Amino acid sequence: MTNYTYDLTYYIGQFTDQLYHSGVHHVVVSPGSRSTPLALTMAEYQQFNLWVDIDERSAAFYALGIAKRLKQPVCLLCTSGTAAANYYPAIIEAHYSRIPLIVLTADRPNELRDVGAPQAIDQIKMFGDYVKWFHEMALPSSEPNMLRYVRNQAKRAVITATSGISGVVHLNFPLREPLLPDFSLEGIWGTPFVGVASYTTSTTSLDEAVLNEIYEMLKKEKNGIIVCGPNHFDQLPDAIVHLAEKWQLPIFADPISGLRNGSHSKSHIIETYDAILKSNHVRTNMSVDFIIRVGAMPISKPYLLWIQQQSNVKHIVIDQVGGYSEPVNVDTYFLFGEVSHILRQLATVPISFHPTFLMSWQKWNAMAKEVLKSNARNELTEGHVISGIQSVSADDHIVFASNSMPIRDLDSFWLCSDKQIELHANRGANGIDGILSSASGMSATNKRTTLVVGDIAFLHSLNGLLMANKYHLPLTIVVVNNNGGGIFSFLPQAKQDSPHYELLFGTPQQMTLSHLAKAFDIAYEKPRNWKEYVQALTASYQRKDVTIIEVETERANNVQWHQTKWDQIEKIMLEELDGGTHVY
Amino acid sequence: MTNYTYDLTYYIGQFTDQLYHSGVHHVVVSPGSRSTPLALTMAEYQQFNLWVDIDERSAAFYALGIAKRLKQPVCLLCTSGTAAANYYPAIIEAHYSRIPLIVLTADRPNELRDVGAPQAIDQIKMFGDYVKWFHEMALPSSEPNMLRYVRNQAKRAVITATSGISGVVHLNFPLREPLLPDFSLEGIWGTPFVGVASYTTSTTSLDEAVLNEIYEMLKKEKNGIIVCGPNHFDQLPDAIVHLAEKWQLPIFADPISGLRNGSHSKSHIIETYDAILKSNHVRTNMSVDFIIRVGAMPISKPYLLWIQQQSNVKHIVIDQVGGYSEPVNVDTYFLFGEVSHILRQLATVPISFHPTFLMSWQKWNAMAKEVLKSNARNELTEGHVISGIQSVSADDHIVFASNSMPIRDLDSFWLCSDKQIELHANRGANGIDGILSSASGMSATNKRTTLVVGDIAFLHSLNGLLMANKYHLPLTIVVVNNNGGGIFSFLPQAKQDSPHYELLFGTPQQMTLSHLAKAFDIAYEKPRNWKEYVQALTASYQRKDVTIIEVETERANNVQWHQTKWDQIEKIMLEELDGGTHVY
Repeated sequence: MTNYTYDLTYYIGQFTDQLYHSGVHHVVVSPGSRSTPLALTMAEYQQFNLWVDIDERSAAFYALGIAKRLKQPVCLLCTSGTAAANYYPAIIEAHYSRIPLIVLTADRPNELRDVGAPQAIDQIKMFGDYVKWFHEMALPSSEPNMLRYVRNQAKRAVITATSGISGVVHLNFPLREPLLPDFSLEGIWGTPFVGVASYTTSTTSLDEAVLNEIYEMLKKEKNGIIVCGPNHFDQLPDAIVHLAEKWQLPIFADPISGLRNGSHSKSHIIETYDAILKSNHVRTNMSVDFIIRVGAMPISKPYLLWIQQQSNVKHIVIDQVGGYSEPVNVDTYFLFGEVSHILRQLATVPISFHPTFLMSWQKWNAMAKEVLKSNARNELTEGHVISGIQSVSADDHIVFASNSMPIRDLDSFWLCSDKQIELHANRGANGIDGILSSASGMSATNKRTTLVVGDIAFLHSLNGLLMANKYHLPLTIVVVNNNGGGIFSFLPQAKQDSPHYELLFGTPQQMTLSHLAKAFDIAYEKPRNWKEYVQALTASYQRKDVTIIEVETERANNVQWHQTKWDQIEKIMLEELDGGTHVY
Repeated sequence: MTNYTYDLTYYIGQFTDQLYHSGVHHVVVSPGSRSTPLALTMAEYQQFNLWVDIDERSAAFYALGIAKRLKQPVCLLCTSGTAAANYYPAIIEAHYSRIPLIVLTADRPNELRDVGAPQAIDQIKMFGDYVKWFHEMALPSSEPNMLRYVRNQAKRAVITATSGISGVVHLNFPLREPLLPDFSLEGIWGTPFVGVASYTTSTTSLDEAVLNEIYEMLKKEKNGIIVCGPNHFDQLPDAIVHLAEKWQLPIFADPISGLRNGSHSKSHIIETYDAILKSNHVRTNMSVDFIIRVGAMPISKPYLLWIQQQSNVKHIVIDQVGGYSEPVNVDTYFLFGEVSHILRQLATVPISFHPTFLMSWQKWNAMAKEVLKSNARNELTEGHVISGIQSVSADDHIVFASNSMPIRDLDSFWLCSDKQIELHANRGANGIDGILSSASGMSATNKRTTLVVGDIAFLHSLNGLLMANKYHLPLTIVVVNNNGGGIFSFLPQAKQDSPHYELLFGTPQQMTLSHLAKAFDIAYEKPRNWKEYVQALTASYQRKDVTIIEVETERANNVQWHQTKWDQIEKIMLEELDGGTHVY
């Protein structure tokens, strides 16, 4: 037996098992060679109603009939080539009549595509917009992470086909030869992911059964957190704080969560989790039992790394219907609906956790904040750029952080406050493009806006100045100029001492910002220390239109300065974890 | 160092090397993290003019400028996320102004796509029809086959961007972490594929330099063949026969090559290579030095397997401009242009090979034909279905073979003849769908057509009878009814004795064809032996419209009958190869 057969058997086995456990009970198969692994595995599994139709066009309409009658997703399976194209008429019918179908097509692997190999047509996105979701599956692998992946794709196919407006999902499987699985292997089917999504269809509330399920799932657990990532949900802060208070849980609040500013209670909010979890020692010595997440994944990479280490964590994600935000690739229980409504419903579940975990986090948060705030020497570092804005800006103000370093510094140094300040960033795709234009648009809504942007992103978006200037927008642009791509200094290539580093990553631009400001006839200041910086900000807020404030930093020093902070926090935390009565 | 780093280093290294050797000398890179392997490798390679632009929108227009000025393909490289979207304006400009650009985008691997992971946007086909070719690259691998693949993709990117109407090519690279190659590894760059494509741009002839190159390439070689696959090129038979006679080479002629029938000389044509190469022993004991192929890959799988074993074979493919037919994944010299014209040009190259190889093949072909033709017992097997049509059909006749088994039987049993008979099949995507309709369409051009189709493909295309019947088309439909998917009996799953075999692959349909013929009011015959079959065919050709001729066979017997033929030919061949003075 080749390794490949081993990979194939488990990968397709777990996919099949999860498909069944996520609610697919009928499969309509059309014969073929490339689809052999899926067809044989589904037959071997024995739980499905397995229908075999030699004509794919008929097969798809047949599946539609079953799905329509039972209001269940039905799975279609065919081989590579024009076989799949025969599904098209029924897929279109299913799209318009909102019937959930899951179309599985076998395909050649990448190296046999489009080179004149027989029966290798281009199957990628072949049904266009008539499917709700297309996914090109990874090649079979039996790595634990990839088995979780294939399970999640099966589950997600069902969620996507059935949630909101039902429709068709298309998964395309690249498969290499040999195509025969080995059913003599042990434990092919694995353990199903139990977190079947509960989603709203005609109702707008979770039913009692779901709330009971959550209760049963969590009642024996100890250490839990509520995590709130980037989002723009309505009425979120009060609902989330209410749940945290009822259940006695800490809230990890991303800077773009909308939770760090405003009049709501902040006693349960932890804004320094990113700084605390930066230490690998701390991450390794602290575990969590369950997580309730609202919004996208937080910006914090340490948080992501920590969760990836928590193999047994119970994961609940609350999102809008049709959302899917689960990059950690763990078994996740999805709750779909109106988010703050679901939070309020959860708060009615009669469960509360011992406050030890909450209190520890509150204590650590206070300690970490002290480290992050300290500025004895009138310094002006990239961290101080953020705290300066926080200290000067008034109520009813917008802060827009560029991607790359500024959003991370915002995460570290923007601490909770009662001011009504909106924090924003472009976190859909996290590009460094168009930053200046997006911030200009924000300020065009008649709110004073401060943009924090690095020199590279500023230059990338330079034309944004045309609008900001022309319309005299109330915009303060803080350019953190470290003459290049500072974020790369934190990546492995920076440590390699590569001859290509500055050329490809550092990319110093040697730009004279003051001249640029003159060219556009924009007010310009270049503070040299904390006091001058605060003055410059204050002055800019008194102007009606655009100001550029240049803060010059140095990339290597910046890494060093940050590292000192993280070291201090790590030291505190390791003492805490060692000396504490509780080992997490 | 992980295996992954090893895979990454060689995969990207060889890609880079081939890109350079295929004619890319300028690369415009924009900084980013996911694209690190490509960026660092290109810098390390040192041969490129490497430009770094932090703004992808500018970078793309910059590349356009270089490419426009130099009339050379220029390469663009950026990271994942919206970075690539910034290329879009320049890609559209390049499309309309016909400038060759090669766009390389780094991407997350499949398991990190579309799950809320940062900077993972959907990059598949993101530039729509503005690129001439999109290819989703395989994950890095250092397997020899995959290194050939990555080289071929680099080379092909250049060919595609520059041949015919120049334009943009987009390769999307899924890359897993860690992203740093290890440049201390040996032989990262490998050996370039020398076969740079020579394509027509403003000229319609190969120039002398190309003909000299071919001469230099082949002058020391011994055993060569001309291979002619499925095609519909004009004036091909005479041109190909002329070259074969000049150079003293055998011609392997696919059944759909247009070479097996007609008035041209057939002395150099070998039509039994599929039968001869079916034996693994024969394949292993016979080598070939060079191949000149015209048309698509032949239908013959044994031929494909044989070529895959010939690691040092020199491979020349002659095709129309913009074609790319090279599924074997070997280093290939492409000659693009008007095919028969190129063949005639090659015939002017003053080279000729010793006829030993040709004469051996001629001898073997004669021997194999004897085996294939023998029919002592008035049998009516699936093989005889083909030879029956060949013996009865008149000049000016069409034979259409269904995919799956009929086309393979046509390959084995349709021997050369001087009759003007056209052989056809749907070999674009090789589907078994729509066979009856395609054959009906053929007969609608007022040529008597005989279709050979299995019961499964016949049923799949049953509605085709509506047209054939309505328009009284001159169509003889020979249905080889072995009650199921006969071709699967030749595959590994048939030997496993799987409980699911009949359900998923055999799929017996238990159809009574005679009733079906009555329902459509179509003439129907069911011959029981060779003589009756020949009579039925003859009678059908005297009718004006449709006849169904059902030939009942049995799947297991059919495999056995074929196997006996292959065994006989293998025996002859092994004696030949052993006893012969030449060892191939």
